[in-house]
Amino acid sequence: MVLLAAAEAGAGSPKARRGLDLPNGVGHGIISNMEKVITLGHGSGGALTQELIERFFVPAFDNEPLRALTDSALIAAEGKRLAFTTDSYVVKPWQFPGGDIGKLAVTGTVNDLAVVGARPIFLSVGFILEEGFPLSDLHTVINSLAETAQAAGVQIVTGDTKVVERGSGDGIYLNTAGLGVVPKGVNLSAQRVAPGDVVLVSGPLGEHEICVLLARGELEFEAEVLSDCAPVQGLVQMLLENIGEGVKWLRDPTRGGLATALNELARACGYDLLVEEAAVPVQEPVRVLCDLLGYDPLYLANEGKIVAVLAPQVAEEALAVVREHELGREAALIGRVLPETRGRVLLQTGVGGRRIVDLLAGAQWPRIC
Amino acid sequence: MVLLAAAEAGAGSPKARRGLDLPNGVGHGIISNMEKVITLGHGSGGALTQELIERFFVPAFDNEPLRALTDSALIAAEGKRLAFTTDSYVVKPWQFPGGDIGKLAVTGTVNDLAVVGARPIFLSVGFILEEGFPLSDLHTVINSLAETAQAAGVQIVTGDTKVVERGSGDGIYLNTAGLGVVPKGVNLSAQRVAPGDVVLVSGPLGEHEICVLLARGELEFEAEVLSDCAPVQGLVQMLLENIGEGVKWLRDPTRGGLATALNELARACGYDLLVEEAAVPVQEPVRVLCDLLGYDPLYLANEGKIVAVLAPQVAEEALAVVREHELGREAALIGRVLPETRGRVLLQTGVGGRRIVDLLAGAQWPRIC
Repeated sequence: MVLLAAAEAGAGSPKARRGLDLPNGVGHGIISNMEKVITLGHGSGGALTQELIERFFVPAFDNEPLRALTDSALIAAEGKRLAFTTDSYVVKPWQFPGGDIGKLAVTGTVNDLAVVGARPIFLSVGFILEEGFPLSDLHTVINSLAETAQAAGVQIVTGDTKVVERGSGDGIYLNTAGLGVVPKGVNLSAQRVAPGDVVLVSGPLGEHEICVLLARGELEFEAEVLSDCAPVQGLVQMLLENIGEGVKWLRDPTRGGLATALNELARACGYDLLVEEAAVPVQEPVRVLCDLLGYDPLYLANEGKIVAVLAPQVAEEALAVVREHELGREAALIGRVLPETRGRVLLQTGVGGRRIVDLLAGAQWPRIC
Repeated sequence: MVLLAAAEAGAGSPKARRGLDLPNGVGHGIISNMEKVITLGHGSGGALTQELIERFFVPAFDNEPLRALTDSALIAAEGKRLAFTTDSYVVKPWQFPGGDIGKLAVTGTVNDLAVVGARPIFLSVGFILEEGFPLSDLHTVINSLAETAQAAGVQIVTGDTKVVERGSGDGIYLNTAGLGVVPKGVNLSAQRVAPGDVVLVSGPLGEHEICVLLARGELEFEAEVLSDCAPVQGLVQMLLENIGEGVKWLRDPTRGGLATALNELARACGYDLLVEEAAVPVQEPVRVLCDLLGYDPLYLANEGKIVAVLAPQVAEEALAVVREHELGREAALIGRVLPETRGRVLLQTGVGGRRIVDLLAGAQWPRIC
């Protein structure tokens, strides 16, 4: 799930419930300043997405697992703790250096399961194909789905295919839903985060988003940036097995990037978070392109990274564990939880100042997912 | 899942495996006669959909639950029997008399769970919205999802929203995945079907498809036909509780209609099935429109019906049970399983002849799903 974490207003609060008064209720907040139609910003993972979730989805579907707004819903079925999640994939182009929509669709859903501590087991896949999409390309996507599923140790057990008329799609859209089992003892929650805890990121930021932007040919730059697209369940398992309860919270910083993931955490735990800009790993080509284009790597999507909040006494040990994994070679400790209870994300910049890193108001560049 | 039942070639057979030789392998069978691109026929639920599944999906994703190609995958998680399914919804227009895409998305997935005997519990929902889609319409869809979920006794616990550029979608596409628990003792399987068994349908055929075709305004006819869109899990529970193991096989005859559902059964069980044309319930307006337009109600999609195969000794009792339910008032016994083992569906016509009712080769009219 790429639904964002709840802001101050809980699902049952008057503020959140106002969403039910639509269409009149639309006339509040951020949405009031936009046309009363869906914009690309509503799919950006930023403030508009969040407003959509808080005003529309949570009040209407109101239930306990949804209200937690974790990457996967934690559900109980027959006395077992399961995790259940879904994502649709509309990446354009559907192939990019380092992956394609099939690899992405398995990875994204496996990762959403992994970061709630679940062992991913079963996936569904839904295809929405545009008339005229080449069968050989479909075959490529299917093979990517199959290979990535095998690599991640999950089975694709059910599926569906719909075809829409030429002109009614972008060639191929996918949806995957995933089911995992949460082992006993796993207890990841923003509520466990406390001042002094340390923030770890498993590698450099922004490769997936920059890679896809480059693959679209709209940037007028050429550079070699591979998507980081990879299932992280192995990395997460290794971390949980070695560090146990010292791992307090996990997320994969996809759409909206690290800034969005940490804002969700800050709002959910209530504490300020401080990120040391100089400690945040970013590959050189990504940094150069960001400088040229005015992008901020903190907001760029990743598809094979995790952010972890760690108890301070295990932070260095956790860093060593993550760095042993092939997906975590360039992991870094990048920040900490502050005692202030304003639920903000602060960036300690190179020149010594601190600035607030907020949710993006809308889409700031071509959508990549 | 609207994947069709496996034909004679099992997943592991050389025939099915040939699909992996693509793109060369595309040059076989039905696909060889088409352009090597996706056509609307691949989404019709007919022979092309089946070929896609058998040649592409099953060999690539090869696993036990998928190979069964039931409406929902039957999976074991932590020792419990679960059912897991997904469907995407691309109905155009998104609103139609009797429902909308939200009601349809919950109904379709709940029904796919119900007909494998599962108690539906949790749903996910993925939105693919086109830039410019009115927020008030989104709100209508969300309310439909919520109301239908409540009526069906399921919780929507996780979701995702993506926005695509104006012109890259049809306003709104949805995907739902669903999770259910299969109670002990439930044993629905084509393998249990035997000669002499009786085929029941829970009501008149074709209302959903005719309703949507009319709502598109392309038929040049006006008529009052409501979609039959409704969750059938209550009806199925009632049937299973009263008739138990006398119920051998169930399906909801959606895309491709009764003809496709019965062809799947015939191929899976191996016996011929005989349908008495005169016994098949069809509402008068649907029958008239079919006559005028040359459509066959047997191939029209339904969204609130079940087909059941019953042991002969309980058939009349089962009919009485189904008729007691509000969704089954016009149920009828429409055919039986023959001893011949050619896996065909035969129609006993009014004039005394028998003709084969096969899978459709492709899409025969505007797609409605």
